[in-house]
Amino acid sequence: MPLPDFQKNLDRLLDCGQLKVWSMVVTVLGDFSENRPVRISGRVLDLLVGRLGITNQALRVALHRLRRDGWIEAEKEGRTSNYFLTERGWSMTRAVRPIIYGDAVDRSAPVWMAIAPPQLSAAEISDALPGDAVTVSNRTAILAGSPDPLGPDWLITDFSATGLPGWVQSQLCGDELRAAYTLLARQARALTLPPEADLLDRTVLRLLTLHQWRRLRLRHGPLPDLLLPPDWAGAQARQAVLEVLSALPRPSLADLQAAYERENGG
Amino acid sequence: MPLPDFQKNLDRLLDCGQLKVWSMVVTVLGDFSENRPVRISGRVLDLLVGRLGITNQALRVALHRLRRDGWIEAEKEGRTSNYFLTERGWSMTRAVRPIIYGDAVDRSAPVWMAIAPPQLSAAEISDALPGDAVTVSNRTAILAGSPDPLGPDWLITDFSATGLPGWVQSQLCGDELRAAYTLLARQARALTLPPEADLLDRTVLRLLTLHQWRRLRLRHGPLPDLLLPPDWAGAQARQAVLEVLSALPRPSLADLQAAYERENGG
Repeated sequence: MPLPDFQKNLDRLLDCGQLKVWSMVVTVLGDFSENRPVRISGRVLDLLVGRLGITNQALRVALHRLRRDGWIEAEKEGRTSNYFLTERGWSMTRAVRPIIYGDAVDRSAPVWMAIAPPQLSAAEISDALPGDAVTVSNRTAILAGSPDPLGPDWLITDFSATGLPGWVQSQLCGDELRAAYTLLARQARALTLPPEADLLDRTVLRLLTLHQWRRLRLRHGPLPDLLLPPDWAGAQARQAVLEVLSALPRPSLADLQAAYERENGG
Repeated sequence: MPLPDFQKNLDRLLDCGQLKVWSMVVTVLGDFSENRPVRISGRVLDLLVGRLGITNQALRVALHRLRRDGWIEAEKEGRTSNYFLTERGWSMTRAVRPIIYGDAVDRSAPVWMAIAPPQLSAAEISDALPGDAVTVSNRTAILAGSPDPLGPDWLITDFSATGLPGWVQSQLCGDELRAAYTLLARQARALTLPPEADLLDRTVLRLLTLHQWRRLRLRHGPLPDLLLPPDWAGAQARQAVLEVLSALPRPSLADLQAAYERENGG
């Protein structure tokens, strides 16, 4: 039976943004697949997401969609199915792992400014810029990493500003994102951590905290961390989240399976 | 009597652009006023510009205009008048002296990129930017020197590009300016220098070469020299012009006055 404290914790984290079931499942599979794509039984998945108020039917729909889109595969085992990330799904979650779980920002990453050649239309500029570029005018953007793919007709300069005006800080992290990070930091800090014995509660809180952080962090590239003050809202959320993840470590799948069997009188 | 060679030289330099008489007079007064505003008699001025095909009447109009605008002053001396740069006129010609007569480009000058804040209109951006800024989009410009006067709401970054696309090179030096510099370099190199004895011819060629160079060089700031390849058209014109100036040194005013008196049977 969920404790009232658990429900309060849950509500705090659910306040941070509505869950998409398929995305939550990717968070769960991704968290357990640190070194390789592990198999998780449909029953354990159902148990975990059920605690978040996700019905078995919604889970089935999400699993179907994820299989169709090539994110996961299923494998029958007796009366249940096991689910695991495909090679592609795993390589995509693995690629973002450092920015989701990492607590250090790589400040050596080069930051550039790119000015579009005059013959490009606004649509062509938008197509050409990587998704994590931050525009500061309709033809000028800041970007991190390699500017090579933009082509030789773009004007590229190192970016090295001594101060960022407010409007540029807003381009790097808009009001909505900042408010979301601030809320997540507050809610993560306000959690009452369940005792060691409550393995399922602890795991669900870990996964939900991770998920809400992952959802926000994947909305942008490295630029806010590279250019905004070190205590910007996203950095505060990162710190609060990583503290929760460290206080609620990932359990072994065997322990989770045992918890499932206890729950179901197994 | 002008020699045919002199006329050929003159035509070469006059080909480089039409003379504005008032501007030519500023070149003459500026050239002689290296350390202080010197007095030049109206008769010597008339002799010098007369060789360029400028009538006495056109000279009088120009002198009137320059006095009205505060560039020069006149002082009666017997039957003639002496002309000299005002304090303001002198400080303005002195300010540009290094870039007109200098053969070295100060490559330590900082180069910036400025991106206008979103609330500024195109007209406000254009007003705010210094005249020698080079725009690379309607809201983004490259500039040299101090960006301070732009105000804290502009995004300012060091400018450090590894290569400049063709369209940026065209912004730094447009086709018309490049063609004008190329022509000036060619014509200056093609001059047949008059012998030492022809003091007037030599002086007139010096002043006209200087004038055509000054006219082009004052159209832009330091950016082309700082950013374009070291052998860009303006640098080639500078080299050709400085060679002429060094081969035809500025005479003393006393020598010029004596030449005037010889011409007029004095």
